[in-house]
Amino acid sequence: MKINPDERMSMGTSYKKRGVDYELLADRFTLPTEYYQSEAIYQQEIAKIFHQSWLMACREEEIPNPGDYITVPVGDESILLVRDTEGNIRAHFNVCRHRGTRLCSMEKGSFRSHEIQCPYHAWRYHLNGNLKAAPMMKELAGFRNEDYPLFSAHVGLWGGFVFINLAEEPTPFEEDLRPLLGKFQAWHLPELRIAHKIEYSLNCNWKLIIQNYQECYHCPGVHPLLSKWTPFRGAVHDCFEGSVIGGYMEYAEKGGGMTMDGKPASVPVCDVSGPDLQKVHYYSIYPNLLLSPHPDFVLYHRIRSLAIDKIKNDCFFLLHPDVISDKSRMERFQSAIEFWDMTNRQDWHVCEQMQLGLRSRRFKRGPYSGQEDILHSIDKEVLKALGHSPPEKFSPKS
Amino acid sequence: MKINPDERMSMGTSYKKRGVDYELLADRFTLPTEYYQSEAIYQQEIAKIFHQSWLMACREEEIPNPGDYITVPVGDESILLVRDTEGNIRAHFNVCRHRGTRLCSMEKGSFRSHEIQCPYHAWRYHLNGNLKAAPMMKELAGFRNEDYPLFSAHVGLWGGFVFINLAEEPTPFEEDLRPLLGKFQAWHLPELRIAHKIEYSLNCNWKLIIQNYQECYHCPGVHPLLSKWTPFRGAVHDCFEGSVIGGYMEYAEKGGGMTMDGKPASVPVCDVSGPDLQKVHYYSIYPNLLLSPHPDFVLYHRIRSLAIDKIKNDCFFLLHPDVISDKSRMERFQSAIEFWDMTNRQDWHVCEQMQLGLRSRRFKRGPYSGQEDILHSIDKEVLKALGHSPPEKFSPKS
Amino acid sequence: MKINPDERMSMGTSYKKRGVDYELLADRFTLPTEYYQSEAIYQQEIAKIFHQSWLMACREEEIPNPGDYITVPVGDESILLVRDTEGNIRAHFNVCRHRGTRLCSMEKGSFRSHEIQCPYHAWRYHLNGNLKAAPMMKELAGFRNEDYPLFSAHVGLWGGFVFINLAEEPTPFEEDLRPLLGKFQAWHLPELRIAHKIEYSLNCNWKLIIQNYQECYHCPGVHPLLSKWTPFRGAVHDCFEGSVIGGYMEYAEKGGGMTMDGKPASVPVCDVSGPDLQKVHYYSIYPNLLLSPHPDFVLYHRIRSLAIDKIKNDCFFLLHPDVISDKSRMERFQSAIEFWDMTNRQDWHVCEQMQLGLRSRRFKRGPYSGQEDILHSIDKEVLKALGHSPPEKFSPKS
Repeated sequence: MKINPDERMSMGTSYKKRGVDYELLADRFTLPTEYYQSEAIYQQEIAKIFHQSWLMACREEEIPNPGDYITVPVGDESILLVRDTEGNIRAHFNVCRHRGTRLCSMEKGSFRSHEIQCPYHAWRYHLNGNLKAAPMMKELAGFRNEDYPLFSAHVGLWGGFVFINLAEEPTPFEEDLRPLLGKFQAWHLPELRIAHKIEYSLNCNWKLIIQNYQECYHCPGVHPLLSKWTPFRGAVHDCFEGSVIGGYMEYAEKGGGMTMDGKPASVPVCDVSGPDLQKVHYYSIYPNLLLSPHPDFVLYHRIRSLAIDKIKNDCFFLLHPDVISDKSRMERFQSAIEFWDMTNRQDWHVCEQMQLGLRSRRFKRGPYSGQEDILHSIDKEVLKALGHSPPEKFSPKS
Repeated sequence: MKINPDERMSMGTSYKKRGVDYELLADRFTLPTEYYQSEAIYQQEIAKIFHQSWLMACREEEIPNPGDYITVPVGDESILLVRDTEGNIRAHFNVCRHRGTRLCSMEKGSFRSHEIQCPYHAWRYHLNGNLKAAPMMKELAGFRNEDYPLFSAHVGLWGGFVFINLAEEPTPFEEDLRPLLGKFQAWHLPELRIAHKIEYSLNCNWKLIIQNYQECYHCPGVHPLLSKWTPFRGAVHDCFEGSVIGGYMEYAEKGGGMTMDGKPASVPVCDVSGPDLQKVHYYSIYPNLLLSPHPDFVLYHRIRSLAIDKIKNDCFFLLHPDVISDKSRMERFQSAIEFWDMTNRQDWHVCEQMQLGLRSRRFKRGPYSGQEDILHSIDKEVLKALGHSPPEKFSPKS
Repeated sequence: MKINPDERMSMGTSYKKRGVDYELLADRFTLPTEYYQSEAIYQQEIAKIFHQSWLMACREEEIPNPGDYITVPVGDESILLVRDTEGNIRAHFNVCRHRGTRLCSMEKGSFRSHEIQCPYHAWRYHLNGNLKAAPMMKELAGFRNEDYPLFSAHVGLWGGFVFINLAEEPTPFEEDLRPLLGKFQAWHLPELRIAHKIEYSLNCNWKLIIQNYQECYHCPGVHPLLSKWTPFRGAVHDCFEGSVIGGYMEYAEKGGGMTMDGKPASVPVCDVSGPDLQKVHYYSIYPNLLLSPHPDFVLYHRIRSLAIDKIKNDCFFLLHPDVISDKSRMERFQSAIEFWDMTNRQDWHVCEQMQLGLRSRRFKRGPYSGQEDILHSIDKEVLKALGHSPPEKFSPKS
């Protein structure tokens, strides 16, 4: 059943209702191209964004038992996420305090002996990071084990997601992600499990993926099927600044789904009901998580920036364990995986084309459309994090 | 029939007759090695040479009809050469004015709808570069399509070759290439067509290829066969400065040809006759075209600099369409292709060895021979373009 | 037969007897991590260490006859080592004095005509480096062959090893390697020949390999077998500063050998006897030779630094020609090759893990153990060569 456009209007979903001040937008231009091409700015982003922000590292289910670990690359840095003997998740810099050897070279595994041993000179640490034993170091005057615990990173937990922060004194987790805290309770996020993962390698800057995710101005041309199931004028943003930015889109038809045939991929997740059955949510948890609760599953992307123009983007699908263990439901669910893999690849192509185009010496900046006003907000977060002033006034003829 | 060396002298072809002042040459040394190794200087070359000079992009025949396009890489930049609805060739920067997406990712093709559409947000441009439609941008106060045409590069046409210039206000094409304008009329260059193309990738600086092309001091050792057909002392330069530098060599025997057996590869091109039957011309149209009209065909190289020590060099053979459509003539013509492919590879090897040698910290500069005086002229053009003063006086013992 | 630990003590082999002052060691920390990560410091190392030090290039046997040559890469530089007509070994920069072309592109070979000809313009040099003939250069006023000999590097010979030094005025060879001069006479090193070579490519800084070679603190964990044959507490250093640093380890049992079964790999080398039968020597001849005379063979590593985090490490085994020509002895000798290949790979892994760990922004420096005091000496040699002051006082809590 088609929803009448006017009805959608009256539901407050039209972009016209968002109170966009087009006069103001008239001088909203993209970031200057050096923000996508300058190695110096990229190094600032690593120091001031990736080493200062809350980064989504993994799901709690990935390290369920004491001793279980996963290594999380953050640029050149490697973080060792481990569940300690008391069941708490610890984040250690993956580097021995003795001479700096990387402690763990595997992507994931389990420390069965409940201690972390350096492969080089056999210094041994407790799972909580304290130095347990350093061979023969006691012979050194003044050496004390308690001076050499593993360097630790901060850990934050929400909805089954494990976040880390490499800063020594980060913004408190609950403060930074406040807009998320009450959200999506009907989904029972901590109870969901990874049903599928797709790994992508892309040749573009990390910001282009977030920007791509937050506007649907490109949808009619790039995503014919997505635009049919969720018309782009049905996009609503409700978080405009800070680390959580985003909103939702509405299905054109009642009982729609993001699948190849536009029907739901599965039963509603846990307690999802009412208006939530009609919405697909799209939130950027800046700078590396794109979170998309659907009525019938949760999709998220974890972005890892490898270079100014290279990212690894892993796309995960969460479902309730009861669905995952139901073979026929999982067969039907393939249609959501197929739909999003197709849609992702459509996005990756244009993001890579944009990265190439931004190399031009002639192009400096371009004008955002009203549909892209939220990108201007994201750009401002980047500038704020870097401590840069807004770029100078710009005219297309200058 | 051998030409008597004295006779060749009297024909003014000996290098001795060129009026080389050997006293003057005594302090002519090569460019300092940093001109082949410094990334900073290479970036200056891109900005001040490749973004300011007339570059040979393609032959007119490669985009014959309205809508036909070819994309031309110039370093990081991509230029979209397209024939517009009125039959004119336009050069656009291959980047959308909206957010900087590269418009076209194919090497060549045709815009059948006679418009250029951005793959990302579907902004549409006329073939002449004017913005035709930008979805929903009219809603923005002050937005006018006429403010957002594609950025354009300048186009120059000569002899069927399409040149582009990325500068906003370049030296006029006819002024820059004046020495070429009256030349080679007997060849009817615009009527010729590409009969064969060989693509080469080389690990050397772009200048080494031009320098290699403009001296035959290396020929006796590197090219035994070429030296037999056209002895190196029969080299004459008649253009010594500016963007067109070069001259010709003469066949040792009447009725010679640059083929494996030293006989002509084909019938003379169009109206070529008289003394022209005895000469092979070698002109550098600085910085990226090496043009070599032979009596029986035209050979040219298009140089694309990819990095300080990497180039792509495509070698083309032009013939009259009547020859191309004649199967037995084309069979004979293979001998010219074979000869030049062999000769090219001999050159590429020594240019790559020179690039490696120039990395030495001990070697600074070396002395040009009398046979290489023209390289000193090319070096001066480079220095002039970069705005550098001539290097300080140099002595081999310093 | 096991050696009684107390007996070993009384033999002066325990590290406790080395007079290590642990009070002093209490503030001995590793070099700051930038010494393994900063491209600027690496460039200083190339200029001030690799271009100023005596480097082991090859064995004399590799260029036995006049005209025989080998090309030795030193970073971007290539050195042409050639035996001249009088039987002397000459080291030339592998670059023509004319325009800088690399003269020789092969790894090794022989100049049968006893002259070195540039592949580009055919300038010809005597094996001793003097310019023999430069085509047509005599026509240039003031050109004299004697002004254009090949640039030469210095050559030093010891024990059959050929060393080169790229500096114009290096520290005299005999002065720099004085601690080696009287050593290992029983081995008759010049008479030995290469019996086997293993080539390794490693992703770590060159200094990590030398540091790895000079301490056995890591042996119990990394090398169970080596630790069984030569317990780490039996390590003695007898050269502590300068270009020759090192010492020896003792076999746990009399009649031991560094093989898979702990028995000798072969008969003693030449005149090796007495206490030498009980020792394995480990000397770093800074910066690129690791020399390890065993009672029954000589092992050495030649380190070539390719980038800040990349080296080529070739491992050679020397034996007396009589052993090499004895098939059954060579069959037994495979056990030494197998043992060292296994042990090398154990070392390479931890060195590569350390290179990765040193990328961390959080780890700055760590404390050396008493077993690693010699590394502090090596670090001081590096700082001295670079002209850097010792790093500031450091505390694990700063």
